Amino acid sequence: MRINNADYRSVWWEHGRLKMIDQNRLPQDFVIAEFTSHEAVADAIRYMTVRGAPAIGAAGAFGLALAAQSAPETKFRASLKQARQLLITTRPTAVDLVNGVNYVYEEAIRFIPDIPHARQVAILAANEFANRSAEECRMLGEIGNTLIPDGARILTHCNAGALATVDWGTALAAIRAAHREGKQIFVYVSETRPRFQGARLTAFELEQEGISHAIIPDSASGYYFWKKEIDLVITGADRVCLNGDIANKIGTYQKAILAKEHGIPFYVSVPLSTFDLTCKEGGDIPIEFRPDDEVRIFGGVQLSNPGSPVLNPSFDITPASYITSIITPAGIFAPEEAAKKAQG
Amino acid sequence: MRINNADYRSVWWEHGRLKMIDQNRLPQDFVIAEFTSHEAVADAIRYMTVRGAPAIGAAGAFGLALAAQSAPETKFRASLKQARQLLITTRPTAVDLVNGVNYVYEEAIRFIPDIPHARQVAILAANEFANRSAEECRMLGEIGNTLIPDGARILTHCNAGALATVDWGTALAAIRAAHREGKQIFVYVSETRPRFQGARLTAFELEQEGISHAIIPDSASGYYFWKKEIDLVITGADRVCLNGDIANKIGTYQKAILAKEHGIPFYVSVPLSTFDLTCKEGGDIPIEFRPDDEVRIFGGVQLSNPGSPVLNPSFDITPASYITSIITPAGIFAPEEAAKKAQG
Repeated sequence: MRINNADYRSVWWEHGRLKMIDQNRLPQDFVIAEFTSHEAVADAIRYMTVRGAPAIGAAGAFGLALAAQSAPETKFRASLKQARQLLITTRPTAVDLVNGVNYVYEEAIRFIPDIPHARQVAILAANEFANRSAEECRMLGEIGNTLIPDGARILTHCNAGALATVDWGTALAAIRAAHREGKQIFVYVSETRPRFQGARLTAFELEQEGISHAIIPDSASGYYFWKKEIDLVITGADRVCLNGDIANKIGTYQKAILAKEHGIPFYVSVPLSTFDLTCKEGGDIPIEFRPDDEVRIFGGVQLSNPGSPVLNPSFDITPASYITSIITPAGIFAPEEAAKKAQG
Repeated sequence: MRINNADYRSVWWEHGRLKMIDQNRLPQDFVIAEFTSHEAVADAIRYMTVRGAPAIGAAGAFGLALAAQSAPETKFRASLKQARQLLITTRPTAVDLVNGVNYVYEEAIRFIPDIPHARQVAILAANEFANRSAEECRMLGEIGNTLIPDGARILTHCNAGALATVDWGTALAAIRAAHREGKQIFVYVSETRPRFQGARLTAFELEQEGISHAIIPDSASGYYFWKKEIDLVITGADRVCLNGDIANKIGTYQKAILAKEHGIPFYVSVPLSTFDLTCKEGGDIPIEFRPDDEVRIFGGVQLSNPGSPVLNPSFDITPASYITSIITPAGIFAPEEAAKKAQG
């Protein structure tokens, strides 16, 4: 992605360290954070220095590669298992994290007892996972672009952009590709309470890319559907089940219902790492509840009545019946077929 | 309403002044603001020191009574007309404001040329308007309570409480009555971006009343519908049309769609001043767009990407087809019949 006229990824390996754009500090500050231990990477995922299903998948993969560098030769497998456990339990909803960490783990332990080789392989495998993810997202852009008519007014939710992936984005990959091809598009950016990833991150990416957009409160999308000023909805996902149900950022479900009620297509764009073939339906997906203070406080300012309880589910389930199509690197599929067809 | 164990109204007349609870400072500070000119009242409405359709109706009525006290005898009618214009153009969507201001105006000018008498009548008329509004809201509680089953889990949006009216509330009047009768209820309080009237004001009222509740982000209501943990939705309105369409706080429309999709009743509770018999359908209602900075900034903290445009519609239209019933002081009616039947 272009930021201040240079090319970046959200996470990358450089000189034996994991680097990532600190997404908690955007858009005010553009800061690159560096990591040398998998424990620090676990904290970065938990506190959302890095967020977005494919991006935390890659961060988890690199985290396990870091663990492989420091794991003692005598208990290499046990240490890696422990690191894997720590990393995949930081956030429960996105399956990319499990897939990224497991991929590096499986590749590395194949080379036991040649531990120096296993360490090298861990780095190679993490890089391979990240590169594949970036390439898949580039393809999501090409393929998703075919669904965006010239002149389209598009609603998106949260940040399914380059920041949420290794590069390009999922939903934003298609939007980016449409814009680069010269289509005149306009994006309604749902601000995405409680952490404002739409207002902070998606809006930042769209501004950097020069794409026309406006931030709206999450509650305002209904109004723009009612005005017939939204032509399509496109989001990412944190997990796709065998039956085509998805989990994504809280608020996605109600946007899908709005789209259906108004006869507007609702597209979901995901790389292959977001499919969970062990998950039959949405009800099987664990929904993360995040700390109350995310809702109560922002930037040190109290937003709500201090004596009142808060509920902060971070994701919701959108059943397949509300999804028009799932965009994958292997093509565009009906939600019920996507898991099988995307795997080839 | 009970606040810190004393009884209050949101707005009231005392010793020749208009007093009101400063709703911008709640819940952190409980401050009573005083007004001696209609210009200051107009500012208070514009900047939401007082908000909520019935409350601004009463504030407007008292504002015109203040104007009548200072209007020169020689151009009493012209001054009142000017004050009326200033007051009713502060906020365009709620019709209660027009109704309250017009009521006092019509009562006062009947006594021209006896200006001292007209001035007294203006105060009496404003008090009468406010008292009638409070009494209607008390009845909304009694009547609305019949729709709330014991054990109900209720979703509400924005603040349709005592603060939004002269007393009791509209949606919250029913909730208050159900609670006082001993029903075990639970209220999901939608936080209501951008100004957090749910999280700040509704939560404050419910806490003061000892009613079980939790604040949720506006985007999270879909999740609780999906979990089958919402039994009914109840909101207020800023205007009700002849055909039963309503205008209410931005986000109401999508909650009504969610309710319909999940087979859950969606009730709207309003005093008579909220009906607009000149308005045929929702498309006729002017939708207020409020300043971008309401979305960008809260408590001095930047919430969004500074370079990005913002759209901030403050209300949306919910068509009658999504409304189960409208609760009025004259009874509970199908939305299409409410305007005619409520007038008797």
